[in-house]
Amino acid sequence: MKGLWLENNQLQLRNDIPTPEPPPGEALVRVLRAGICNTDLELLRGYYPYSGILGHEFVGVVEQGPENLLNQRVVGEINAVCGHCRFCLSQQSTHCENRTVLGIVNRHGAFAEYLCLPIANLHTVPDNVPTEVATFTEPLAAALEIQQQVELGANHRVVVVGDGKLGQLVAQTIALTGCELLVVGRHQDKLANLEARGIKTGLATAVKDRYFDISVECTGNPEGFAIARRALRPRGTLVLKSTYAGNLSLDASSLVVDEITLIGSRCGPFAPALQLLATAQVDVQPLIQARYQLSEGLAAFAHAQSRGVLKVLLEIG
Amino acid sequence: MKGLWLENNQLQLRNDIPTPEPPPGEALVRVLRAGICNTDLELLRGYYPYSGILGHEFVGVVEQGPENLLNQRVVGEINAVCGHCRFCLSQQSTHCENRTVLGIVNRHGAFAEYLCLPIANLHTVPDNVPTEVATFTEPLAAALEIQQQVELGANHRVVVVGDGKLGQLVAQTIALTGCELLVVGRHQDKLANLEARGIKTGLATAVKDRYFDISVECTGNPEGFAIARRALRPRGTLVLKSTYAGNLSLDASSLVVDEITLIGSRCGPFAPALQLLATAQVDVQPLIQARYQLSEGLAAFAHAQSRGVLKVLLEIG
Ligand SMILES: [Zn+2]
Ligand SMILES: [Zn+2]
Repeated sequence: MKGLWLENNQLQLRNDIPTPEPPPGEALVRVLRAGICNTDLELLRGYYPYSGILGHEFVGVVEQGPENLLNQRVVGEINAVCGHCRFCLSQQSTHCENRTVLGIVNRHGAFAEYLCLPIANLHTVPDNVPTEVATFTEPLAAALEIQQQVELGANHRVVVVGDGKLGQLVAQTIALTGCELLVVGRHQDKLANLEARGIKTGLATAVKDRYFDISVECTGNPEGFAIARRALRPRGTLVLKSTYAGNLSLDASSLVVDEITLIGSRCGPFAPALQLLATAQVDVQPLIQARYQLSEGLAAFAHAQSRGVLKVLLEIG
Repeated sequence: MKGLWLENNQLQLRNDIPTPEPPPGEALVRVLRAGICNTDLELLRGYYPYSGILGHEFVGVVEQGPENLLNQRVVGEINAVCGHCRFCLSQQSTHCENRTVLGIVNRHGAFAEYLCLPIANLHTVPDNVPTEVATFTEPLAAALEIQQQVELGANHRVVVVGDGKLGQLVAQTIALTGCELLVVGRHQDKLANLEARGIKTGLATAVKDRYFDISVECTGNPEGFAIARRALRPRGTLVLKSTYAGNLSLDASSLVVDEITLIGSRCGPFAPALQLLATAQVDVQPLIQARYQLSEGLAAFAHAQSRGVLKVLLEIG
């Protein structure tokens, strides 16, 4: 089959990849659409060691699997877990000690004609959700993880730093909590997407120091972190939603003096993400910047890597 | 009156300081004993701008104040607050936006014959607690702040990194929660204090990676932070109890991947700290390294600054 293969920080379009055969407990999924995520770009830059097929945001159709899923459109949770380690046994299976992760850790990913995932990872896509829209389930779930970790409600002042793909999804999900929300970014056109939905936006200069209860850092750069930090009142919470290139240098003493909480946030729950898409409470259409065929995958990556680009989709099947 | 005065990073013993006159709402306290803390040493090194009388750990006798406190031994909370800002109004007055802090921010401290503090800040010392022991109330309260922020119980695995003054108090308070506790440090004699109380101790090599639910960093150095970080399981919590010289460089991406919580921790509640001293549940005697008269204050500081020294006390009145 065809697929985008990463090896030694080089991405290649290959036509000679054997179609996978699902081991017991797994399904074979024919991929329809997939999305390129910042993590894919970071893997390509060599931030994490990985070789194999890239990609973890996808919608596909089950070709081999249990009857109730056969020929259904599905999305899939990316962590394939052992089921018996202490994290699996304590409902924290996204941290399974023995996990493989679709297109990220020891498991071939979604930028190919077929993939395999454990049956338990699959969720059917509601009929009224277009395939293209459903490719956002995984990042939308990651955005919802914040609300699993931090209480957010009408009494809270929240600032989201970053107007990129992730920041936009985070902002839309947080807006639904009824909190006082500000989203700051550098791109007028992207902020306009959010303004159109009634979300208050601004540049970094709009962030009042020590005003916010919660800040969410979605830029992955030290400047974004600095904004998220200075925005917080004492005893505020800074959610780290992005990864960083290399180490981050921070004033740890000020975290002590102001008793700030920093919390890292990664994968989240799929079911409520699909629900938000099915009820159109979140609009992902403005986030789609470009579509490419799998055979144009290298061009798709070049596009995704250019500055300020939102979501680039691969049309696979 | 006599006092230890900090100005331009120079500590001087002065004899010409006017005895303070308590403004309305404050008491005049004659200082009996005071303790030198790492924060005092950091102020001396110029980490924070401050000039005036140093010192914030003390026991004294009320000479002017309300009838019920007159001639009583007292300790005092160090944050003098406004009572009307949003933090004061939400029971978070240690973060008062308009606070002064005894011997730290815009308020003369305890290394002098007299000090003033708001009456509301004072707590009488139970009769059975020796004056010397009661000087540990403030740092012991700071140790207890951890338990206000993080749930600790028999099901938790906790590591305390650091066997200095603060680490020892933190370890003793955490041991009372019944959790599985390990304290790591570099000094056999200090760890022996804790071993004698039935607390398990070891060197850094004794820390099993990714094993602990909670780690408490009490060293204020990057090596200590690294131990506290690697000790944590995914979704674990790292409590920052010490301040740091300059910025700390950390792997923020790993905090995201492992969904780690970092939480800064500062001042804590006095009443339970006094209670622990009154019931002898915490033993501070082994922490007393030396005693000096106020007139030998510069020598006391020189001693407190030498490596590996525990608590140096000033005998003032
Ligand atoms: Zn597992
Ligand atoms: Zn206040």
